Amino acid sequence: MRATIMHAPGDVRVEDRGKPAIQQPTDAVIKVVAACVCGSDLWPYRGADTLHEPRPMGHEYVGIVEDVGADVKNVQPGQFVVGSFFASDNTCEICRSGYQTGCVHRQGVGGAQAEYLRVPLADGTLVATPGTPDDDKIPSLLTASDVLGTGWFAAKAAEVGPGKTVAVVGDGAVGLLGVLAAKQMGAERIIAMSRHADRQALAREFGATDIVEERGDAGVQKIRELTDGLGAHSVIEAVGTQESMMQAIQATRAGGHVGFVGVSHDVALPGRELFSSLVHLHGGPAPVRQYLPELIDLILAGDIEPGKVFDLELPLDQAAEAYRAMDERRAVKVLLRP
Amino acid sequence: MRATIMHAPGDVRVEDRGKPAIQQPTDAVIKVVAACVCGSDLWPYRGADTLHEPRPMGHEYVGIVEDVGADVKNVQPGQFVVGSFFASDNTCEICRSGYQTGCVHRQGVGGAQAEYLRVPLADGTLVATPGTPDDDKIPSLLTASDVLGTGWFAAKAAEVGPGKTVAVVGDGAVGLLGVLAAKQMGAERIIAMSRHADRQALAREFGATDIVEERGDAGVQKIRELTDGLGAHSVIEAVGTQESMMQAIQATRAGGHVGFVGVSHDVALPGRELFSSLVHLHGGPAPVRQYLPELIDLILAGDIEPGKVFDLELPLDQAAEAYRAMDERRAVKVLLRP
Repeated sequence: MRATIMHAPGDVRVEDRGKPAIQQPTDAVIKVVAACVCGSDLWPYRGADTLHEPRPMGHEYVGIVEDVGADVKNVQPGQFVVGSFFASDNTCEICRSGYQTGCVHRQGVGGAQAEYLRVPLADGTLVATPGTPDDDKIPSLLTASDVLGTGWFAAKAAEVGPGKTVAVVGDGAVGLLGVLAAKQMGAERIIAMSRHADRQALAREFGATDIVEERGDAGVQKIRELTDGLGAHSVIEAVGTQESMMQAIQATRAGGHVGFVGVSHDVALPGRELFSSLVHLHGGPAPVRQYLPELIDLILAGDIEPGKVFDLELPLDQAAEAYRAMDERRAVKVLLRP
Repeated sequence: MRATIMHAPGDVRVEDRGKPAIQQPTDAVIKVVAACVCGSDLWPYRGADTLHEPRPMGHEYVGIVEDVGADVKNVQPGQFVVGSFFASDNTCEICRSGYQTGCVHRQGVGGAQAEYLRVPLADGTLVATPGTPDDDKIPSLLTASDVLGTGWFAAKAAEVGPGKTVAVVGDGAVGLLGVLAAKQMGAERIIAMSRHADRQALAREFGATDIVEERGDAGVQKIRELTDGLGAHSVIEAVGTQESMMQAIQATRAGGHVGFVGVSHDVALPGRELFSSLVHLHGGPAPVRQYLPELIDLILAGDIEPGKVFDLELPLDQAAEAYRAMDERRAVKVLLRP
């Protein structure tokens, strides 16, 4: 089968690899219908994460179940499924508390930018849709696998709710879908921080009421001006750098909540500043599995259309171009079809 | 009047100073009935905080109102009052949300280890007791001013509640009162981290069910062993060092809560570890004012006796000895009577 492999920073190739097979009785193998390139895939692409060996890429996927192990009960061959980027048993105490990415049996899912994918712990990781969805729902369902679920978790972690003012740091797909999540959760005011016209437009379409172009201290100052000097109730952080984390903390009012989902890179939070800020801080790898049933329902009902974050679609064989387009910020997010 | 002044690290003197007077119409002046030495007073005493000039010490106090400014409505001369260590208006949006230490008009209160004390924003800072309390209630009421209120906030920030396992990092007065707070809030299991027999005994008296003597990685390992490998639901951090913060974060399960109230010193939290921990982090200077009415009720009803943390009582003139006793860990907490 064809699969996307990263050999080195900037070096992504689509190659022939063996088709994955069931290894554990709890595995499923799916035929990938759509996958995509994640903002976090750009870290190793840019050399910010070390690659010790060629890495099969991709952890966002929708597909048709091809085969299941003997112990799999919840999904069966032929079903259309959406999965999360971490495999979880969905039965342990941590999963039951809603933190499937902290599952005691958690495993990464990798190699989704390919024709076929082995998904461990299939019963706790995959969610089948009722019937096979229309093709126009595929992009939106694909977002549920990671970027939508991550934006959703960020909004939950930031305690977004009715009457609240929400600021969103980061205008990538996750930040934009954080805007969409905040809108769905009833936020009164949603301030998107972005300096790109196309992303600003999508943020407004998803529910942003204000746009702030300033960054760093000036961005914080602007958020404070928009909130009677107090800061936002809820801030979604969707970048993962020192600057973005500090911007998020400083833009939050005392007693407010920061939900951070940008994968941290070289971040060290100064204790004294965190202490005096009086903010709540919560985040990490989003327990997407928790939200999948609800998100699938919202998408199939047409209540949300998160698939709009895909502004480029390419055949799998052009995965290298997909990475280039995202790296050069020519695309917000690229969908790949095997 | 007599007042405690720190001139330099290790150099605390009780000296004659002018009696404070009303400066703003929102001020009150109280005759201090009891004050005490705070763990945070030991930071400058030990040279860990810089002293730019001689500093009047003390921010924990109970007393009798002596005089009030023209705008003060809620307290009057002759009333016995408990105040918080930050002055707040208790009317702004941040105060109304329960974060009086983030009040838009907040001011520090200083110089309580003295015969008299000026309290700014008296209406929003002081709470009068019903009548003058019995002398045996004074130590407990004094703790409400800071250490009890801070332990209480830490337990709230750590989302302590029925059925939960709580770990407490730090066996100073705040940590011990964090144990008491956790017990009051219905925690099922309370693990106190302490290696001092007298503090362990007090922790057990306040409600600790388990004692862990190990620190650092070994302490974390022990907490995990006691919690099926998962970590505690709630962890109270009451020290403020890098080691104690990391111990608190690592001892908390995915999705669990850390309430941190130790004043941060040279703490830098690694973003990647915080990200992958999936914990909630909340803390800072405790909004004691929020809890004062409830805590005063619990103390006067005899439901709690937090004053047991005072294991030494000295006349104000021996304040220097009070600092020495705490610095040398001969005393957990020292009460001073003017």
